[in-house]
Amino acid sequence: MEVQHRINKASIVAAVLAGSLALPAHSAGAARELPSKPTVADVIKDSKPTDWRALDPENTLYMEVPGGRVVIELAPGFAPRHAVNIKMLARENYFDGLAIIRSQDNWVVQWGDADEKNPRPMKTAKATLPGEFTVPMKNDSRFTRLPDRDGYARQVGHSNGFPSARDPRTGQAWLTHCYGMVGVGRDNGADSGGGSSLYVVIGHAPRHLDRNITVVGRVVAGMPLLSTLPRGPAPMGFYEKKEQHVPIASFKVAADVPEAERSKFEVMRTDSAAYKAAVEAQRNRGGPWTKVAAGHVDLCNAPIPVREQQ
Amino acid sequence: MEVQHRINKASIVAAVLAGSLALPAHSAGAARELPSKPTVADVIKDSKPTDWRALDPENTLYMEVPGGRVVIELAPGFAPRHAVNIKMLARENYFDGLAIIRSQDNWVVQWGDADEKNPRPMKTAKATLPGEFTVPMKNDSRFTRLPDRDGYARQVGHSNGFPSARDPRTGQAWLTHCYGMVGVGRDNGADSGGGSSLYVVIGHAPRHLDRNITVVGRVVAGMPLLSTLPRGPAPMGFYEKKEQHVPIASFKVAADVPEAERSKFEVMRTDSAAYKAAVEAQRNRGGPWTKVAAGHVDLCNAPIPVREQQ
Repeated sequence: MEVQHRINKASIVAAVLAGSLALPAHSAGAARELPSKPTVADVIKDSKPTDWRALDPENTLYMEVPGGRVVIELAPGFAPRHAVNIKMLARENYFDGLAIIRSQDNWVVQWGDADEKNPRPMKTAKATLPGEFTVPMKNDSRFTRLPDRDGYARQVGHSNGFPSARDPRTGQAWLTHCYGMVGVGRDNGADSGGGSSLYVVIGHAPRHLDRNITVVGRVVAGMPLLSTLPRGPAPMGFYEKKEQHVPIASFKVAADVPEAERSKFEVMRTDSAAYKAAVEAQRNRGGPWTKVAAGHVDLCNAPIPVREQQ
Repeated sequence: MEVQHRINKASIVAAVLAGSLALPAHSAGAARELPSKPTVADVIKDSKPTDWRALDPENTLYMEVPGGRVVIELAPGFAPRHAVNIKMLARENYFDGLAIIRSQDNWVVQWGDADEKNPRPMKTAKATLPGEFTVPMKNDSRFTRLPDRDGYARQVGHSNGFPSARDPRTGQAWLTHCYGMVGVGRDNGADSGGGSSLYVVIGHAPRHLDRNITVVGRVVAGMPLLSTLPRGPAPMGFYEKKEQHVPIASFKVAADVPEAERSKFEVMRTDSAAYKAAVEAQRNRGGPWTKVAAGHVDLCNAPIPVREQQ
């Protein structure tokens, strides 16, 4: 018996948003079956090559950890100075030989320099930068809004493959803390982080961190290498002993890796009709497994398909 | 540098819900500091013994897996027939020696009988039951509503320690798929599950499963024993080989375990003033780390405190 999340195969249908929450709850064993609908997998299968974009090697990072490679896509449009600084840290080999030092259940995995007494020196890269918690909405030309309401923000949707939010009253836009998003650890000061300590969300989206931290990107492959790490026994999930640290063999900009060794992924364009269909497949699932279609999709439940480049 | 989520200490203040979303986004480096406020840890520290209830051994399950014990609290008010059946399965040693057979990233860990050809026979327990996807609201007298809006349901809140939702138009209430919630795997039929295959949510809340599955309870201790399991390589996170299965040494009702061997936990009463303060601590964090209070809490981000019995 499976917790299924595939449904029937069918052609892509237009998004039908309204009304499903108005369905009466089915009584147990109700025989009525929902009409079949395409699944996310169907949408991917039926998509066109132009519905996808390849990762840009200059804005992609490879973190090599035991078990394999974590692939991170940077979002320079939302954190331009941090993206530059993190790439500089990578190119100056700052992270190579450092470690993952924290794994807190339903929260984050974090890496950086554990040695506070004798910290690794930086070269050209900056130790701290002013926070880039939000950007002017006008900088974010790739936003595609979801019709679904959200408790944390006036508007939510996707900006060129990243979950994001915006507030027309303040004119600001920001990336949101969904599963797999990468942020910049900081101390109390808004300008106390710079990218030398990064974390990834491994649990339910801690959206209350939105607009409080610089979010720099998203893990597009390799999440299980992080999400399955043993949780740290010290407060806040830090590892207690050096032997528990998970070593980072290398942390590189993809453009600096020989082409033959690059991971070739493509991300579904979040401003495409295919993506709209993928989100609708999640919002209102069809029969025969589903008994009640949700009629809503939470921003962080909207899948952002990634696949090997075709 | 830490992704902090502790703030200052202070006395418990009344919930102030409105308005925070109207705060202008702080510019990077803004010097204005939010007033300090109690954290969830502060609320727990300041709570009274009557703000807590001990787990009922008759409605608590212990699953022993490599590394330790997973403690599950059943919610018989929401799934009365399944709770009875799962306890019968436990008492007839159905799960002992079976295994965790699935671990899918950002989704679920699931256990049961992997041997479809030669399934383990049942004794008195039933193989299948009518689904208990929702219950009449009148059966749920312990509901405490959150003021926060939700995209998936008309009303959300907590029922005696479990996240739940309700729809006054249909008169139905149901448990919600938050992190750590336990559900009953089933095939296409609403009456095709019975509790012999159970799953736990290990990622962002898949709320679109609400009202489609019988939810029977919540993991109150031991989540890392499940959430860090290697992800299964087969489709939907199933393990491919028997050697990958994670054995269940035993699965017992706590009441059947000698008292000296029981885990003694207590859960904060979700209809207490202390709990209201705990949720508010999550909804609107204070200074000095927080720069913008969220002004909202997602149902599945509202912490449900559990501690060793005092």
